[in-house]
Amino acid sequence: MSARILDGEAFASQIHQQTTRRVQALHKLGLTPSLVFIRVGEDPASRAYVSRKEKRAAEVGISSRTLVFPENTSLPSLLREIDALNADPKVHGILIQSPLPKSLPNNLVYARVSPDKDVDGFHPVNFGKLLLDDPSGFLPCTPAGILEILRLGQIPTAGKHAVVVGRGQIVGRPLSVLLARKSPGADCTVTLAHSSTRDLPAITRQADILVGAMGRPHFLKPEHIRPGATVIDVGVNRISDSSDSRGYRLVGDVDSESVRMVAGAITPNPGGVGPMTIALLLSNTLRAAESSIS
Amino acid sequence: MSARILDGEAFASQIHQQTTRRVQALHKLGLTPSLVFIRVGEDPASRAYVSRKEKRAAEVGISSRTLVFPENTSLPSLLREIDALNADPKVHGILIQSPLPKSLPNNLVYARVSPDKDVDGFHPVNFGKLLLDDPSGFLPCTPAGILEILRLGQIPTAGKHAVVVGRGQIVGRPLSVLLARKSPGADCTVTLAHSSTRDLPAITRQADILVGAMGRPHFLKPEHIRPGATVIDVGVNRISDSSDSRGYRLVGDVDSESVRMVAGAITPNPGGVGPMTIALLLSNTLRAAESSIS
Repeated sequence: MSARILDGEAFASQIHQQTTRRVQALHKLGLTPSLVFIRVGEDPASRAYVSRKEKRAAEVGISSRTLVFPENTSLPSLLREIDALNADPKVHGILIQSPLPKSLPNNLVYARVSPDKDVDGFHPVNFGKLLLDDPSGFLPCTPAGILEILRLGQIPTAGKHAVVVGRGQIVGRPLSVLLARKSPGADCTVTLAHSSTRDLPAITRQADILVGAMGRPHFLKPEHIRPGATVIDVGVNRISDSSDSRGYRLVGDVDSESVRMVAGAITPNPGGVGPMTIALLLSNTLRAAESSIS
Repeated sequence: MSARILDGEAFASQIHQQTTRRVQALHKLGLTPSLVFIRVGEDPASRAYVSRKEKRAAEVGISSRTLVFPENTSLPSLLREIDALNADPKVHGILIQSPLPKSLPNNLVYARVSPDKDVDGFHPVNFGKLLLDDPSGFLPCTPAGILEILRLGQIPTAGKHAVVVGRGQIVGRPLSVLLARKSPGADCTVTLAHSSTRDLPAITRQADILVGAMGRPHFLKPEHIRPGATVIDVGVNRISDSSDSRGYRLVGDVDSESVRMVAGAITPNPGGVGPMTIALLLSNTLRAAESSIS
C-alpha cells in the first residue's frame, strides 16, 4: 500500500483562493497590498525563486517589485534602501531573498526590516513572539506552511509524537517550537534530532509525524519510518545529474520512492512544502496590508 | 546507591565569585553595576524573592533598589517608570518581578523594558535572539542556570537525549531550544513533553537528562527515570502543611526521596535551580554594565 500524497500545490491553491478574496476586499477600499523583494547578486536559483513568488503575488492581486543589488553591494547602501522601504507607507511587505552574500552580516540585514513588514518572519522580534506564543508576530513561512499541510491534510496532531530532524534556524528549530504549542493543529510531543543524535532510526521510528529538514539528499529511508507515519519532506538538495540541462536536479531529504511504501501520508518534493511556503508568504503580506489600515 | 547531588548553592557560589571579580574591575573604573527591581503588589513570595536577590546583589557589589507599586497601579504609570529607567544611563538592569497582577497586560509590560537592560531575558527581542542563536541577547536566567548546572556538574550533554517536561515560556520551551543548540554544553537530542503527552514514562525513560518543569508537586517518580539519568527539578509548588508556620511548604516536580535511588545525579529542591537563577541574573546585570561602557 502506498502512502497518501499530501498535495502541497492543491493546499496552496486553497490558501491562495482565500488570500485572493481578502485582497479583493482591500482593492475595494482602494488599497493594493504591496510586496518588495530585495535580491543581492545573480544566483540563478534565487532569480528563479523570486520570479516564482512575483508570479504568484500577481495572481492573488498583490503588487510586487524586485530591487536587485550587485553581489559586491555595500552594507550602508543596502540598509539605506531597507530604511526607505520601512518608511514608505505604500510598502506592506519586504522580503530579502536568501542567501545573501557571505560578505554581508546577514543577521544585521534581516533585523533591519521593520518587524511589521517582515512577512518572511525572520526578524528577532518575530522569532521572539513565536517562542512567546504571541500571535501578533509573523511566523516564518516554511514552518507555518507545514502546519497548514497538517491541517488541510487532516493529520491529527494533539498528543502525537512529532520528530523534526534538522535544527536550522529557518525551519527545524522554529517548527519544533510551533508543533509543541498548546493550540489546535499542534499540541504534539516534539523531539528535535540532528547531526549529533545517536541511533537516529530509534528516534525517528517513534514519530507519528516525521519532518526531514536537515538538507541531506534522500537521507531518510524506510528504516527511519514507523509504518503509517506522516512524512514531511522539507529539504531541497542539488545532486549532480548529467541528463539534466542544468547538470543537477533537486531532491528532498526523504528517499520518497521507498519511504512511500511504509508511510501513511507523505509530501511530494517538489510540490509539497515549497508551494506552501509561497502561500504563507502571500497571506502574511495580506495581513501586513490589513494591519496597515486598522 | 543514591544519586550524586548537584549542589546549586555551591555552583552559584562559583558564579558569584567570578561575578564579584569582574564587578570589582568595574568599580575600579568608577562604575557600579546597578539593578532596579519593580514589584507590583504585596505578594509575600514576591517580596521574599526580591529581597533575596537584593541581598545577593549587594554581596557581589551590584547596587540595587526596589520600586514598589500598589496592586491596582495603572498601566500608564508603570510604563512611565519603565521608560524613565530605560533612559537612565546609571541603571544597567531592570527586573519586573513576576507574577504581575492579571489586570495588567503582562507581555506589554515585559516588552517595555529596553532589550539591553532586560537582564531577565524576557523581552521578545531576547527570546528571538535565543531562537536565532545570537549571543548578543540575554538568556532567561532559569534555563541558562540549568545549562550551568550541567556544565559545573560535568554532566556530558553532546549526543545525549534530554527530555524536558513542561512547555512554559519561562523555562521549558526556551530550555528545549538551548539544549539542542550546536554548541559546547548542549548539542542534545531534545524531546519537549507536556500535559498532552501520551505514555509519559516511556518518553521520560529515554532521558539521559530529565528536566521537570511542569509545576506539579512530586509528579516525576522512579517509573519515569532511566537508571543513572541526571534529573533537574525546576518546579516550585506549594502544598499545604499544617506543621509549617506559613501553612504550606514548597516542593519540586520530582519525588526526590524515591527518585534519588534511581537517578545518577539530581538537583536538590530547594538548593538546586533556584540559587542558579539568581546567579545568572547577576551575571547578566554585570554584562549589561560592561556593555554600557564598550
